[in-house]
Amino acid sequence: MHTDLVAALDIGGTKIAGALVDGHGRIRTRAQRATPAQEDGETVMRAVESVLAELSASPLWDTASAVGIGSAGPVDASAGTVSPVNVPGWRDYPLVRRVRAATGGLPVELIGDGVAITAAEHWQGAARGHDNALCMVVSTGVGGGLVLNGRLHPGPTGNAGHIGHISVDLDGDPCPCGARGCVERMASGPNIARRALDDGWLPGPDGDVSAAAVADAARRGDPAALASFARAAQALAAGIAATATLVEVDIAVVGGGVSRAGEVLFAPLREALTRYATLSFVQRLAVVPALMGTDAGLVGAASAALSRTAGVTDAGV
Amino acid sequence: MHTDLVAALDIGGTKIAGALVDGHGRIRTRAQRATPAQEDGETVMRAVESVLAELSASPLWDTASAVGIGSAGPVDASAGTVSPVNVPGWRDYPLVRRVRAATGGLPVELIGDGVAITAAEHWQGAARGHDNALCMVVSTGVGGGLVLNGRLHPGPTGNAGHIGHISVDLDGDPCPCGARGCVERMASGPNIARRALDDGWLPGPDGDVSAAAVADAARRGDPAALASFARAAQALAAGIAATATLVEVDIAVVGGGVSRAGEVLFAPLREALTRYATLSFVQRLAVVPALMGTDAGLVGAASAALSRTAGVTDAGV
Repeated sequence: MHTDLVAALDIGGTKIAGALVDGHGRIRTRAQRATPAQEDGETVMRAVESVLAELSASPLWDTASAVGIGSAGPVDASAGTVSPVNVPGWRDYPLVRRVRAATGGLPVELIGDGVAITAAEHWQGAARGHDNALCMVVSTGVGGGLVLNGRLHPGPTGNAGHIGHISVDLDGDPCPCGARGCVERMASGPNIARRALDDGWLPGPDGDVSAAAVADAARRGDPAALASFARAAQALAAGIAATATLVEVDIAVVGGGVSRAGEVLFAPLREALTRYATLSFVQRLAVVPALMGTDAGLVGAASAALSRTAGVTDAGV
Repeated sequence: MHTDLVAALDIGGTKIAGALVDGHGRIRTRAQRATPAQEDGETVMRAVESVLAELSASPLWDTASAVGIGSAGPVDASAGTVSPVNVPGWRDYPLVRRVRAATGGLPVELIGDGVAITAAEHWQGAARGHDNALCMVVSTGVGGGLVLNGRLHPGPTGNAGHIGHISVDLDGDPCPCGARGCVERMASGPNIARRALDDGWLPGPDGDVSAAAVADAARRGDPAALASFARAAQALAAGIAATATLVEVDIAVVGGGVSRAGEVLFAPLREALTRYATLSFVQRLAVVPALMGTDAGLVGAASAALSRTAGVTDAGV
C-alpha cells in the first residue's frame, strides 16, 4: 500500500478540501472550495466536482486507485449517502454514487468526519501503535471515532464513535439532538463560553467570547472561566470513561480547537477521569492531545481508501 | 465445530456451575457446587476442581477439546486472572493456569460473565443473526457484553460491555465502584426496591422487598413502584443509547431477574429510548427480552471455547 495513491475529500459545513495522498500519508497536491452550505444540493455537489476536477488536472491523478471521503455527519456508509446537519441541501444525498460518477468509476469509501480524524491519528498521530483507542474533536461540536482490535471501527453506517451525543447527565440541559445532557452540550467551545458568561466571566475589551478567550481568562485565574473548563472536563471525563468501560480503549486522543487550551483543559480532565474511570481495566487509560493538524480529515479519508485498496489484512488503519 | 465438545464453567459469587457442552450448544452433563465465597482462595479453587472432577467422570470427557470460563468480574483475560468482587479470596487469582493444570493441559478461554451471556444470546438467543448487539443482565448488578461486526467483543481483558458502570448522571449518587450515577446505581434490582421504599411504597404482609415485589406493586398501579421502574428504565435507556451511539448496535437484549418484570420495565424503557437514542443511525434500535435461561453463562462460556477451537473464521460467536 505504501506505493499507492488515493484521492481524499474532507467535507464540512465551511469548506470542501481535496487532496491526492500517497501511501505514506503525504499530501501530494490539494484543492479547496468554500462549502455553499445554504445552497441547494446540486450547487454543493458542483463545488465537490470542482475540487475533483482541479485534482484530476495533476499528472498524478492517473495513478489514484480510490477515493476516500470523510464527511460531516450523519453519514450512511451502507447506503452511500450523507445528511450533514450544516448542509441542509443534502439529505440522504447519494454522495458516493455522484463521486464515483465524477471520477470515472473509482471505488469510493465513505466515513464520518470523526472516524476520519481517528483514522489519521491511528495511522500517523497520537494513537499510533494503540490497538484500542478513542479519538475526539472538541470544537464547535464534539465528535469522535474508535479503533478496536487494531482496526478502525466505523460501524455499519460509518458513524460509530459519536461521543458528543451520549448523555452523561440524563436530567440535564436539552441538546439540539433531542436528548439531554449530551457531552457536546456541556463541553463544546460555544457551551464553555456560554457557561462562563452565565457565571460572571467578563470578556476583554476586544469582545472575544470564544472558548479560547475563556481559556486565557482561566490561565489568569478567573473563577468563572476555570469553573466552566472544569465542568467541560468533567463531562468529557464521564464520556471517555463510559467509552473505555464499554469497549476497552487504553488511550483517548483529544484534538480540536478547545484542546488548544492545553493544561487548562487537560489538567482537570485527567483529574476528573480518576473519578469516573474506576474499574480495574480502565484505570490506566491515558488522555493525550491530538498530533495531527488541520489535514487530519484528508489524511484519515485517504487512510480509509488505502485500506480498502489494500484489503483487510495489510491496511494502514 | 458442530461435532466438537468443550467443558464450560460459570463462576459466580453464589455457585460454580460446570457442564460439557456440544457444538450445538446442548448441555450433555453438568455439575454444580456452592461458591465458598468467604473462604480463602484455595478453598474456592477446590470447589472448581470438584466440579471439573465430576465432569471428568463422564465418558464424554475424553472428547472435550477446551475449557471455556465465564467468571464474575473483573477478569483479566490477558493475564489469565480473576478478581470477582464477591469472592474476596480471589484477587488476581491465576484461574486460567489452575484450570489448565486441573484438566491435564486443555486450552482455556476466559471471559467475563456479561460477555459470556452475550455469547450465548448471539449464538442461540435473542441476538442471533445480529452482527452488532448489546446484551445486558439487569439483576443484583447490571452487566453486559457486545457483539461487533458479527463477533464477540470481549476487549483485551475480557471486560468490554460493562454498561452497569458507565455514568449517565455525572453528579448523581455515589456508586460502590467509586464513580457517580452509574447505570447499576440507578437500575439494579436492589436500587429499584430501595428507591420505591424511599418514595413511599409499602411492601406486602410477606415483607418481600425485592424488585419483583416492586414490579407486582407497579402492575397494581402503585405510584412509587411505577416511578422507580420509570427511573430505572430512563437510566437503562441512556446507557443503551450511549452504547449504540458509540459503537452502532441495532439491538439491545435485556435479561436478568429485573427483566422478568416484563412490560413494567420494557414499556417505559422503549419510551425513554426514543428520548435518548436521537441520532438517525440509532433510531431503529430494538430492545427485546433475553431468550436464554439460567444456562446462558455455561452456553456462552462454551461458545467462547468452541470459537477458540474452531479458529477465527468459522466460530459460533
